[in-house]
Amino acid sequence: MSDSRPIALFDSGVGGLTVLNAVARRLPHENLLYLGDTARLPYGTKSPLTVQRYAIKAVSFLLERDAKALVIACNTATALALPAIRDQVGVPLLGVIEPGARAAVEALGRLKGRREGPIAVLATEATVASNAYGLAISALAPSVPVMNVACPLFVPLAEEGWTENEVAAAAAERYLEAVRRAGAPVAVLGCTHYPLLKRTIAHSLGPQTVLVDSADSTAAALDRMLPEKLRRLGPAAGETRLLVTDASERIRKVAGRFLGREATSLELVDLP
Amino acid sequence: MSDSRPIALFDSGVGGLTVLNAVARRLPHENLLYLGDTARLPYGTKSPLTVQRYAIKAVSFLLERDAKALVIACNTATALALPAIRDQVGVPLLGVIEPGARAAVEALGRLKGRREGPIAVLATEATVASNAYGLAISALAPSVPVMNVACPLFVPLAEEGWTENEVAAAAAERYLEAVRRAGAPVAVLGCTHYPLLKRTIAHSLGPQTVLVDSADSTAAALDRMLPEKLRRLGPAAGETRLLVTDASERIRKVAGRFLGREATSLELVDLP
Repeated sequence: MSDSRPIALFDSGVGGLTVLNAVARRLPHENLLYLGDTARLPYGTKSPLTVQRYAIKAVSFLLERDAKALVIACNTATALALPAIRDQVGVPLLGVIEPGARAAVEALGRLKGRREGPIAVLATEATVASNAYGLAISALAPSVPVMNVACPLFVPLAEEGWTENEVAAAAAERYLEAVRRAGAPVAVLGCTHYPLLKRTIAHSLGPQTVLVDSADSTAAALDRMLPEKLRRLGPAAGETRLLVTDASERIRKVAGRFLGREATSLELVDLP
Repeated sequence: MSDSRPIALFDSGVGGLTVLNAVARRLPHENLLYLGDTARLPYGTKSPLTVQRYAIKAVSFLLERDAKALVIACNTATALALPAIRDQVGVPLLGVIEPGARAAVEALGRLKGRREGPIAVLATEATVASNAYGLAISALAPSVPVMNVACPLFVPLAEEGWTENEVAAAAAERYLEAVRRAGAPVAVLGCTHYPLLKRTIAHSLGPQTVLVDSADSTAAALDRMLPEKLRRLGPAAGETRLLVTDASERIRKVAGRFLGREATSLELVDLP
């Protein structure tokens, strides 16, 4: 028995490709289908209603393409739309926030109480407003304080490729001042764009703060949750298809930055 | 005879509200209907095909609402979609680029040759790629050189309200270095968001560069083009309705910044 149907990943743009990479490394025989709603990005500055509407359409599209499991590889869509999607989906479904929260709590545990302070959640305005990370962290570690910090400019900075220059540094200094003052021992990169700015963020926060992102822990969670009968067996490597709703040269360039290799084959699709 | 049907203005977001203000000042008796496609903004980083598709849907929507004239109050939509729209519309139709180009050429004329150098066009990536300003300026003043400069981060900076801090200053220094070196006597703010950064841009370019934007010249062009029989007569002041496709608290806040007063009544509408 081997199930060749794809595992589908959905993101508002191309930041979720870091999650795709992590899944491909952990489950190398699986066929992967990625959908980035690049025509309507960003989601992080928009209202819950709009994000839910777009996410539900994307998920229906992927189920019609025979997805056997679904990963919402976007923090904003996970925060605002996962509960609404869960009711409509008959396949294993995973967001990035619970795994990200778990990674943060585990990182704090590894410090064995040597440092005091909150877990800082760096995320989009929409994710911060939802307090989804706060709820997920409380469920795992009720006594750990959480501070949410919206960093909306990090997304366009990552897309512009301005990840380590003086503009990025100045933005990080502004956004992260409260985190520095609080002496947070752990900060979650709560948006799939932010890992591109990891060095700038780390420099601004200093060595006392450990940064975690959700890509690897999401892939690990998917591996745990995927039933044996849904797996595709080796030895052949799986194939990856990348679908986007807008395919400009810019998107191709940014996608390459997240993939870590050239994004040669972006297929354009239309979502209603 | 008095025609009370509205003049409609369309923008990808709320930057076009500066054009709305200019039209309201010049044609105070007209009813105005503004549509901002805030659910799918920004347009400036997207492909011509996607921008055309969205702009055509918006224009159809406004014509169904009985618009007697149409202003595309968005540089990107004007640059990429105006020709496609023109074929489908039976009412007076105006974009912001021809008026902006005219304002730039007139500003250069007022310098009476005291300064040499190109007209700099500061705009989104999509507007720059179209060279729509270059073509419009050439049609008015064939011998004037034009330099296009894409400044994509100015849009999220304006939306974040970071218009005069050190992050905005650092971004302006980077984007505008070539303009300073070329000693451009005139620079066009070729995106309706950029007037919010006017002081930062002016500081970076120095006193040798005159800044122009298209809001006032677009209102003047509309006044010239609107036939007598389509006008609404006074003395009663016209009414303004603001429609948006996404209505978060953030949009309301940003809209207020462009309007120069509180945006109390944003009506949410759904575009297909």
